[in-house]
Amino acid sequence: MFFQVTARDPKSLARCGLLQTCHGGVLTPAFMPVGTQGSVKALEARELHALGYTLLLANAYHLLLRPGHRTIATLGGLHRFMGWDGVILTDSGGFQVFSLAGLRKIHEEGVEFASHLDGTRFHLTPQLSAEIQRDLGSDLVMPLDDCPPYPADRKRIEEAVRRTTAWARLGLATPMRAGQHRLGIVQGGVHRDLRARSAGEITALGFEGYALGGIGVGEPPELAGESVRAAVPYLPPAAPRYVMGIGVPGQMLELIAEGIDLFDCVLPTRNARNGTLFTSQGKIQIKRHEFREDPRPLDPGCPCVACRNYSRAYLRHLYMSGEILASRLNTLHNLTYFASVMRRAREAIASGTLDRLRSLGEFSPCPRETSRMEAD
Amino acid sequence: MFFQVTARDPKSLARCGLLQTCHGGVLTPAFMPVGTQGSVKALEARELHALGYTLLLANAYHLLLRPGHRTIATLGGLHRFMGWDGVILTDSGGFQVFSLAGLRKIHEEGVEFASHLDGTRFHLTPQLSAEIQRDLGSDLVMPLDDCPPYPADRKRIEEAVRRTTAWARLGLATPMRAGQHRLGIVQGGVHRDLRARSAGEITALGFEGYALGGIGVGEPPELAGESVRAAVPYLPPAAPRYVMGIGVPGQMLELIAEGIDLFDCVLPTRNARNGTLFTSQGKIQIKRHEFREDPRPLDPGCPCVACRNYSRAYLRHLYMSGEILASRLNTLHNLTYFASVMRRAREAIASGTLDRLRSLGEFSPCPRETSRMEAD
Repeated sequence: MFFQVTARDPKSLARCGLLQTCHGGVLTPAFMPVGTQGSVKALEARELHALGYTLLLANAYHLLLRPGHRTIATLGGLHRFMGWDGVILTDSGGFQVFSLAGLRKIHEEGVEFASHLDGTRFHLTPQLSAEIQRDLGSDLVMPLDDCPPYPADRKRIEEAVRRTTAWARLGLATPMRAGQHRLGIVQGGVHRDLRARSAGEITALGFEGYALGGIGVGEPPELAGESVRAAVPYLPPAAPRYVMGIGVPGQMLELIAEGIDLFDCVLPTRNARNGTLFTSQGKIQIKRHEFREDPRPLDPGCPCVACRNYSRAYLRHLYMSGEILASRLNTLHNLTYFASVMRRAREAIASGTLDRLRSLGEFSPCPRETSRMEAD
Repeated sequence: MFFQVTARDPKSLARCGLLQTCHGGVLTPAFMPVGTQGSVKALEARELHALGYTLLLANAYHLLLRPGHRTIATLGGLHRFMGWDGVILTDSGGFQVFSLAGLRKIHEEGVEFASHLDGTRFHLTPQLSAEIQRDLGSDLVMPLDDCPPYPADRKRIEEAVRRTTAWARLGLATPMRAGQHRLGIVQGGVHRDLRARSAGEITALGFEGYALGGIGVGEPPELAGESVRAAVPYLPPAAPRYVMGIGVPGQMLELIAEGIDLFDCVLPTRNARNGTLFTSQGKIQIKRHEFREDPRPLDPGCPCVACRNYSRAYLRHLYMSGEILASRLNTLHNLTYFASVMRRAREAIASGTLDRLRSLGEFSPCPRETSRMEAD
């Protein structure tokens, strides 16, 4: 049993679930830290266990460019390479090709592009994307999709829906290894009918789980919510649902209430390196002068290494001094916070109190922050 | 008993010792990692214990500039600030003023200089240096010294010797807290007679330990050894001896044989961040193409986190990708190596086999690397 629903919120579409793979289980709703280049920045992957994570995301695009999927295969796969015995989801490379690579040429067989590192030309096809992820040994495999930015005209979105379905079919024709699970991707932009159409086409192909792509690509958050609401009714209730690239805590809780199980985002790790820290009292800019002599922990209730051992003044000093340790402690803290939000969401769903959790001031929306960010 | 000699090498001046402070003991010979700005780069200080360190060095100059010694005092001292319950030695700020700060004006009362961070003017006196270190709560306190570069004419070195003695006297007049131990600094450049004169003057003032400054400031390593040999006979045998800023393993072993007990250097941490790794087979540039698909650990016999968990190929990938984790794993490795060199030196002294250890190819000299480096 790849996925089972273990609890339901009586007042929303939210549910708790257990996702099982040969690299262990994941309690959902779950957030996955992003390990773009085979490292969740500033951490060893194995340290994620202690923070409460059993699942991370890695980027096929980045690993294709460097060190190369064949190299990783030669070295025994991505789990061994990065020293992580938990679950790995890899994206298909599509989002990065559309947002990061240069000299892009899209056609029916795939996308030609130039590496953002050195300009090397690649031709990423649905088949190659699947092969990359097979070589990496990902537990959860995403198909190459056509992911337009926001805004885009309806014609472009219609094309993306059509092409995403065609590519999904081509990807499915590439065999995977035993134990690798495929998720489909639904496109459709902010058009309710196109989301429904895409969801219908993709689910008809038969994946083990479903992701919503093209969310958080620049659209207002209320349109993101609408897009999710438009697609979810067409997704099989027994399969896990994943909104890609979303990660503001308040927005994740809203989408959990719409029936979403999985999220990923660079927000906690990137914000950490920029000195923005999530706490039970809201967000903190650690560089602020007011923390200069503040002996208190960042968040007194937080069990992370940074909060147990250091003052706000020390964290500020490390950040102002450009110390590597600032990135590390801040990352440990933010990821601890994100894990706790997901744990609290699961507990709230199981006890029927998700609405109360969602109403906390801690999760009030920050509209400027809902855009999906580039891989970490 | 601040320091006691616990073993002697029958064939050289090398000795093992135990240095005791109210923050615990240090087995000598010992190397101290450098935590310039209140952080040994990429690590938490408390992680040093597991690597085998009980002593670290912090820089009074850097902490004076940012966040300020009064701020650290308000927050309970440097130990609490950086979460380190082991021993802390602070340098006086002199070396950085002479090598890093701008618009320097040296006179009999001290040195005026402009902060390298923002140009703020400071006036560092022997008294202020002592006060800074008192405020920080250092266990081992260094006096402000006059540290000319190499080469400098003999007149300049004579002046430095005279001024270093005068400043040492002024520093001693500033009371310290109970439990703080003062070390004197001997100057004299590469002039044997001036080293002897400085050693005589400084020991006459009565410190609990003695450091040799102005070594590794650009002179050839054989002159460094000569300078040490010129001073050691004038230092009381019952006090610990420290050569500041030296850290090439082979050179440390040579100086241990001359009777030196303590060392500090940014070499292992800075080299780590630059991808130069110390191993039992010599140094490795991890970026080399040959490691691209090398599944072996960096150093099979090394017990560090990097060697136990990752391949050379992964370490290379992290370094080539500019990942923060590269700095961290490489630092953990190099500091583990340096701790093991000191442990092996202590064992060799106790068993009378230091000459054998010194003759290993692992420690063959690398002449271009013997210069003292700026604070980390």
